[in-house]
Amino acid sequence: MLAVFGHLNPDTDAISAALVYARLLTRQGVEAQAYRLGDLNFETAFVLRELGIDAPPLLPQLAPGSAVALVDHNESAQSVSNLSELDVTRVVDHHKLGDLTTSQPAYLRFEPVGCTGTLLLKLHLEAHLPVEVTDAKLMLSAILSDTLHFRSPTTTQADREAVAFLAPIAGVADVEAYALAMFAAKSDLGDTPAETLLRMDYKVFPFGDAAQPQTMQRWGLGVIETTNPAYVFGRQAELLAAMDQVKAEDGLNGVLLSVVDILNESNRTLVLSATEEKLMREAFGVETVGQVADLGARISRKKQVVPALEAYFAPGTPSV
Amino acid sequence: MLAVFGHLNPDTDAISAALVYARLLTRQGVEAQAYRLGDLNFETAFVLRELGIDAPPLLPQLAPGSAVALVDHNESAQSVSNLSELDVTRVVDHHKLGDLTTSQPAYLRFEPVGCTGTLLLKLHLEAHLPVEVTDAKLMLSAILSDTLHFRSPTTTQADREAVAFLAPIAGVADVEAYALAMFAAKSDLGDTPAETLLRMDYKVFPFGDAAQPQTMQRWGLGVIETTNPAYVFGRQAELLAAMDQVKAEDGLNGVLLSVVDILNESNRTLVLSATEEKLMREAFGVETVGQVADLGARISRKKQVVPALEAYFAPGTPSV
Ligand SMILES: [Mn+2]
Ligand SMILES: [Mn+2]
Repeated sequence: MLAVFGHLNPDTDAISAALVYARLLTRQGVEAQAYRLGDLNFETAFVLRELGIDAPPLLPQLAPGSAVALVDHNESAQSVSNLSELDVTRVVDHHKLGDLTTSQPAYLRFEPVGCTGTLLLKLHLEAHLPVEVTDAKLMLSAILSDTLHFRSPTTTQADREAVAFLAPIAGVADVEAYALAMFAAKSDLGDTPAETLLRMDYKVFPFGDAAQPQTMQRWGLGVIETTNPAYVFGRQAELLAAMDQVKAEDGLNGVLLSVVDILNESNRTLVLSATEEKLMREAFGVETVGQVADLGARISRKKQVVPALEAYFAPGTPSV
Repeated sequence: MLAVFGHLNPDTDAISAALVYARLLTRQGVEAQAYRLGDLNFETAFVLRELGIDAPPLLPQLAPGSAVALVDHNESAQSVSNLSELDVTRVVDHHKLGDLTTSQPAYLRFEPVGCTGTLLLKLHLEAHLPVEVTDAKLMLSAILSDTLHFRSPTTTQADREAVAFLAPIAGVADVEAYALAMFAAKSDLGDTPAETLLRMDYKVFPFGDAAQPQTMQRWGLGVIETTNPAYVFGRQAELLAAMDQVKAEDGLNGVLLSVVDILNESNRTLVLSATEEKLMREAFGVETVGQVADLGARISRKKQVVPALEAYFAPGTPSV
């Protein structure tokens, strides 16, 4: 039985992709079971509630050598802790290729599109398999989530076409209204503890020269995408305290929390200390005011924030 | 202009895949040019002569940041020396995933099939592009070469179906006769210098714990696939001398040269010194006699030799 799962701190794409890919493989004769690596965020909970389906179970401890399929991620820092002991036989992803290796030839399907859901639709079409209603809504939701309904610069023509193809199958007549309902659910953060908010969409990235591991830096980059940034900044002090704690717990060089205003397409990032302030200045040319750096329209961690940090930390590259 | 190339010491698949993928991309609106990373072997020269086409040019020195597409390989040890400075935007391959990383999301297409040609046919079909005659014969030749006309355990149903699909387009009425002609051309080694024979189909593999680079071993694994093993063993002394020299030049822990009898489907491997003899005994349970280890039906380096060595050198694994 192949275990299929997305990244830690799962988002809607990580959960949807695990469910959809496990079902697709099963329909193709490969027995597969979807799992998750953490709690659902409010947006994903809304999507599953709308569909009336359960979340996939938490991934149990897998024995070394177990076959696994990764979706929506490939770097070990974003995956199950014993990934290097497992046998990765399949990956469907839309992120840059990190430190993944396989012990045998495997199925790898990476494309630079906005969402794993877009790729999974392609796999259905290539296999000449009709898309089931539930799967259609899962993929649709994931694409709207990952691309912020086409607002993100990660959006491609393939993502737009996928949404146009999936919406009628999913029975979503008004895509705009459905996306706004998803984003409202995501923004309804209530009394969620600050550390939970920080870790909701949070990834650890290694930066620097992989050939010299001892010189590399590890940064934690959290994102809160919301239609209600005022609520988040109302909890700024709590969030900064949580960032300080997470930085120490995870042994990081730095931690950032970007608050992305979905509807206004802007990013104001919480900056913890002088270390992070220096990075904002040197990597983005942005001054921090009151522990907030205004990163303007850089709303995509993947396409706008991480590449700038990669370039900044790259060995031998003059920092611009 | 995207540079498309296969591995060092190119075989028929590496050359064919570069030519076919560059043309496919160009037909899809991505300007691409095929290159090679070394001299043609006799089999590939035969295939191109049959088709009346030129070999792709040698890859020139590329400026850092140049966009490249890799075919039929992904590990840096088998690629251009400054690979880490280049921007890998596409990979089509059927080997295990090694140390490749990408700086941006990329197109990666890996499947555990017998040949890159099989995957390239799939890409044509998915794109609804008719296969051109030359491309059909290139892919057909590559599949026959990589699978030793279905004798290799790397052969999959997809490879067989691809050959059945391609042969009529390529105008190859008698596939068996064409394969034998290819293998005869490959076996017609004449007065080729011993080091050239050794390096013709030769790859360097890192073994051990990548997390502890200083403990890793690097082995050079050459293969001569031939219908005329007697010729090769007639030059055993010369070949052993070349192995000794290559081992020193490349700073390797060990070097092996497998002589694969295509028609009898057997592998007798030249063993240089006590180091290699110990590996034959401990990794394969095979005793070396007169500097030759009989590896029996293990005719696939990829599927039968390298995995056994991976397992043997794996950290913490008891050597069986
Ligand atoms: Mn995603
Ligand atoms: Mn190949």
